[in-house]
Order: sequence, then structure tokens, then C-alpha cells
Amino acid sequence: MRAPQGDLSGSAGLPVGPASHAADLIECLRARRPRVHCITNAVAQAFTANVLLAAGAVPSMTISPDEVAAFAARADALLVNLGTFDTERRGATEAALGQIAAEGKPWVLDPVLIDRSPPRAAYARELAMRRPSAIRLNEAEFIALAEAAPPEVFAKRNGAVVALTGESDVITDGTRIVRVGNGHPLMARVTAMGCAASALVAAALAIEPDALKAVASALLIFGIAGDIAGETANGPGSFGVHFLDALFNLDPETIRARAKVSK
Amino acid sequence: MRAPQGDLSGSAGLPVGPASHAADLIECLRARRPRVHCITNAVAQAFTANVLLAAGAVPSMTISPDEVAAFAARADALLVNLGTFDTERRGATEAALGQIAAEGKPWVLDPVLIDRSPPRAAYARELAMRRPSAIRLNEAEFIALAEAAPPEVFAKRNGAVVALTGESDVITDGTRIVRVGNGHPLMARVTAMGCAASALVAAALAIEPDALKAVASALLIFGIAGDIAGETANGPGSFGVHFLDALFNLDPETIRARAKVSK
Amino acid sequence: MRAPQGDLSGSAGLPVGPASHAADLIECLRARRPRVHCITNAVAQAFTANVLLAAGAVPSMTISPDEVAAFAARADALLVNLGTFDTERRGATEAALGQIAAEGKPWVLDPVLIDRSPPRAAYARELAMRRPSAIRLNEAEFIALAEAAPPEVFAKRNGAVVALTGESDVITDGTRIVRVGNGHPLMARVTAMGCAASALVAAALAIEPDALKAVASALLIFGIAGDIAGETANGPGSFGVHFLDALFNLDPETIRARAKVSK
Repeated sequence: MRAPQGDLSGSAGLPVGPASHAADLIECLRARRPRVHCITNAVAQAFTANVLLAAGAVPSMTISPDEVAAFAARADALLVNLGTFDTERRGATEAALGQIAAEGKPWVLDPVLIDRSPPRAAYARELAMRRPSAIRLNEAEFIALAEAAPPEVFAKRNGAVVALTGESDVITDGTRIVRVGNGHPLMARVTAMGCAASALVAAALAIEPDALKAVASALLIFGIAGDIAGETANGPGSFGVHFLDALFNLDPETIRARAKVSK
Repeated sequence: MRAPQGDLSGSAGLPVGPASHAADLIECLRARRPRVHCITNAVAQAFTANVLLAAGAVPSMTISPDEVAAFAARADALLVNLGTFDTERRGATEAALGQIAAEGKPWVLDPVLIDRSPPRAAYARELAMRRPSAIRLNEAEFIALAEAAPPEVFAKRNGAVVALTGESDVITDGTRIVRVGNGHPLMARVTAMGCAASALVAAALAIEPDALKAVASALLIFGIAGDIAGETANGPGSFGVHFLDALFNLDPETIRARAKVSK
Repeated sequence: MRAPQGDLSGSAGLPVGPASHAADLIECLRARRPRVHCITNAVAQAFTANVLLAAGAVPSMTISPDEVAAFAARADALLVNLGTFDTERRGATEAALGQIAAEGKPWVLDPVLIDRSPPRAAYARELAMRRPSAIRLNEAEFIALAEAAPPEVFAKRNGAVVALTGESDVITDGTRIVRVGNGHPLMARVTAMGCAASALVAAALAIEPDALKAVASALLIFGIAGDIAGETANGPGSFGVHFLDALFNLDPETIRARAKVSK
């Protein structure tokens, strides 16, 4: 999600599929304002909520076992972020997933830092088999999750879009593949950027039934907001602020003009 | 708390009561630095603390049952925000309310999103009967709390000031009513804005014994800081930053000049 | 950590020891990117993570008892912040400290607001006897921790560097003493500034084996970033943003030129 790769730069400005889908998606998000329930870690909660609000979605964040099913029932999509792997959040995850699965709504798995914690990795592998619509993670996390399987194989086996984010993003459903080259190095210096990207993916899945299109569009929008923020930021503090402003102001033309995507 | 209504704009600049009270209050807050203990959700904690600090108050935030009574005993006012309705926070609420009630100190109820969670709404109705000094909430939350009762009736019945915030704010103690037309649409795009407004209401109640005056003053100050932030913000990221700066720098003259209030 | 004291201003710009150590440290932090595991309160988590990232360190924040030992085992230093004194965080503290002690890694105690909560103070006194590398706190917290002992005596007795922060910072290991006069009054108006300073102290201890040098360097870097942020901030909102930018951009020459230290 950082510097564009050589083979991607040539596609900037072309009205390729993913750029057009992303341009449509940002308008739909603002018009339809999907509700996204987020089970996420305390470090990420405020920034994640602000990213969803800036993009037009409506966040909720409770993890109380007594009421998370009620929130999931009223939400259009769910995010399960494993950034804090505590008993309460596991209980909340089970209650929310039960509701989401019963209604066939989309959900996203973000297995944060599972490369550092074997019990968290074991739980992530279990969740990955429960048909998340998408799994967003970085390379170290993917290795801990998928062991030796390549992304396409893992995606096909689990019936989930896999979104590997990093210098550039690779998004695959096992059949199709999209690469996104937008983004900025300062994204790695602001906490919860990845967590917030996963939340935006959930918002996109609430609107776009083709999961590959939804995930690629969300990450493209996220990366372009990063590009724009990086042009005026003086460091990670102003980057976070400018990022929210850029996401809020992003228009379809800018998405089409700046998209660095390849298939 | 957004765009001013037509019948309010005419009062801008007039030295009506609420504007003068708010102008006095901001100076008292800075001089007396009341301590506000906040039982609030993790999404809102940091922004709420920063709003209180910017206004001159001193926040504390622990929800540990072992020590929340000790913090409540040393605080000048309490905020009970139901944004995360978990067992620990309910225990903290009981311990803190026991202390606050015993000492006759003011407290504020913020029944966040009770329209989405029946168990949370039931607890909010129970708390509303325990004589909060004020209840701050939006329209959907008010309907879930008060069912068919109008704000004046509900306020009188519960002995609490009701502050309904939205496009404009309506504040009533059941006898008197104040309307505040200040604020900016970007307030709805920054998470925890409502939660932080409730915390500022608690700070005001620590200083001003007339609860209607305290609540109206706090919401007027909050709305004017929003007006000012909205004039220079480029989106919700910079709005949040400028809001804290505006609140910190707000002077009595600006409050008197910008207040849009009616009775 | 605010306005420089009279006897310190004369040393600004001189290549005294602490300034040179701090200049070296900032480069080492960026080159080696130490991992700092933080057991801290929810109010402080996001800002603390952003401060560590801006300085070049890599934060982790889980408090789950099931995995905190795994994170501590992979971390280079640990922060124990008592800002929320709940059962879960006490469990996490015990698990993490066991791991850290077994491997002889550095750890920092930040006994937040123990002057307001007797049970928290009792736990802080117990932790202070378990050989933290450093204890960072303000004057009211120090009195609650050390009772009548002066900082030098308390530091020597506990084998820990004591860092008393305030208008100016006093850092002592019981034998040596360093005073830092950098910083800005707006630091007291941004929540979690002290908590984040303690986290940066932990990052410094991961790199510099002389604990006094590490602590003084971290607080000098922190204070200088505050000086720089204060020059362009319009209030506490922009101060927090500029602070992260300043920390990210701080170079060794600026540290040497701006340091206000005395021994």
C-alpha cells in the first residue's frame, strides 16, 4: 500500500475496471451509508470509526456479549479484528458471527499480528474456515495464517477474498487478481491504518456483492487518500489528519485519475 | 448542533442570558479546573479527555470497580456514557453513582445508541430514574428512552435537564427551554463528538448550580467551537484538530458575538 | 517538561553529554526499531502507539493474559502504565513481567494518578520493588509512591532510575542527576503525553544499557519535540499533531542545538 511498483505506474489514469468500480463505490457509500459493526482493539477504535465516518459509513463498536448480536442484526457488515485477543472479544466475535452468518451478511477478518502470538494465530485459522467474505493482512500475518499456501490457493480453499497489503496490495479470490499500487510510506507510521482499511473493506462489502470488486475498490480508495495526504503531510501526525480529510473529499474523477491498478 | 434554524439567527450577537452565562462559565472552568470522572466507551475516551483538557477541566477515566469510587470521591462531577455496555462498566457505574449520590454531586447520563440495543435501553431507563442532573442524547435515543413523552414532560418527571442535540439543540428542565443553533455539519463526521459534549456538560454542572444554565452554556460553548472549527477545516480530520484549538482559545467576547440562542 | 528553568537556559546549544547521547539515540531508534510492548490504559493507547511509531519504535499493546507473555518474549522492552488499574491489566502485568524478568529485559513503571487511588498506589509500591529500569511520574505521584524519600534515595533503594517530570524534568539513578528544561505548557493539555513519554523511555532503554543516559535522552527528545510543536501550534489539537511531526523529523543537529540540560 506504499510506493507504486514499476509495472503499475503505466495504468494510472486509465479507466480500467477497478478504478471505475471504486469511483462508483465512493458515491454509493455516501448515498447508502452502510452500518459497519467493528469488533476491534482499543488502539484502533477511534481512528477506525473516524475513517468509516469520513467515507460515509456508520460505525458501531460495542463488544459487550449482551448486546453485540443486537448490533450485528442492525449492521450491514461486520469486521472482526484480532488486535486484542481477549476473552470478552472472543465472546463478542462468536455472538456477532452467529447473527451475521444466519443473515448471510458479509464480514471481514483482520488477523492483526498473529505472527507474534501462537494462540491468536490458531484462532485466526479457525475463523478463516468460517467463510469470511475477505481477509486483509500483511505478509508476515499471511504466512502465519496460510502456512505454505499461496494467496490464490488459500483464497479458493476458504471461499474468501485475500487482500495482502504492503508496498503494493494484492487482492485475489483465487480466480481473479488485482494489484493496487497507491499509498504512501507514512501509512506505516500511523497506528491502526491497516485496521481502518479492513473496516473500509467491510463497508464496501455491504454495498458491492462481488467481493473481489468490493475489496479492490476499498483498498484503492484507501491508497489514493494516502497518496493525497502524503503530498501535504509534514509527518505522521499531519498525515493522519490529512488522510481523513482526503477520504472525506475524494471524488470519482480523482479516483479515476490517480488509480494505479493492474490485473 | 449543526446549521442554525431560521428563528435563531436573529439572536446572534445579542447579550441574551445564555450567551452571558456561557461567557462567564468558560472563565470559571479555566479558573477552577473542575475534575470530571468519565465512565465512557473506549472509542470516546481520548477525544473526551482532550475536550475536557482544552476547556480547562481535568479528566479521569478509570472504570476499575476497585477504585472508581475513590476517583468519584475526588471528582466534582461524573459522566455515565453507555457507549459500551459491558459488565465492568455497569459495575463501575454503580460504584461511582453510589459515591456521587451520597455527596450530592452532579452527574450526566449519555445513553449512546440505545435505539440499537434493547438491554442498553432498559438500563438507561433505570438510570434516568436515579436523578441525573442532565441527560444528553439525540432524537432516536430520546425516543428509545422516553417512549411517547415529550422532552419537557420527561425532564419534569425525572428531575433532570434534557438536552436533545441535533440540527439545533433543545435544552429543557421541564419549565424553561433554551434552543442553541450553533454547530457545524462536520461534527457528525467525527467520532465521540456527542460523548465529549456530554463530558463538557458535566464540567459545567460542577461549577454552575442552575442545571439548565450549566447545560445550555456547555452546549453553546461546544457549538461555537464547532462553528469556528468549521470555518477553516478541510474535512473531518482537520475539523477535530481545529475544534480542540477553538475550544482552548474561545474567549467571552467571541461567545457573546456568535451565540445563536432563543428561549 | 515545560518552561525551562533559569539555571538551565545557559546550557542550550552546548554539546554536553546528554544532548550528544540523545542525538545518537534518535538515530539508533530509527535504525534498530526496537519493539516495545505497552500495558497501558485505553485513553493512552493510540497516542502512545503513534509516538513510538513516529520515533522509529514498533509498539504492541495487547493485555490479554493468554498472549501477553508471547508478546513480551518478542519485545525489547516493556511499559507498565497503571492508568487503568483493572483485574485484566494486573494479570497482564504479572505475565509480562515474569517473561521480562526471566530474560533481563528493561521495563518502565508509570504509576499514573496513584495520588487519587489508594489501591493503585499500593500496587505501584509493590511494582517499584521489582526492579523496574525506570519509573516516570509527576510530583504528586512521586509523593504517593515514595512517601518521604527524596528521589535520589528512592532511586538508589529500588535500583531504578527515577524521572520526575513537570516544569522541568529531574532524572536520577541515585548517584548521578540530569535536569531537562525542554518542553511546552500545551503538553499538559493533551491527554496521554506523560504516558507516551514513558513509552519512549522504554524504547530508549531497549537500545542504551546505561539507564540514566537512556531515560535522560528519551525525555530530552520528547521535550524538544514539544518545544518545536509549541512554536507553530494554535492550541492543544494542533499541538498533538505537530508534536508527532516534530518527533518524526527530529535530527541530531536540532537536538544538540536546542537541548536545555544541566547536571
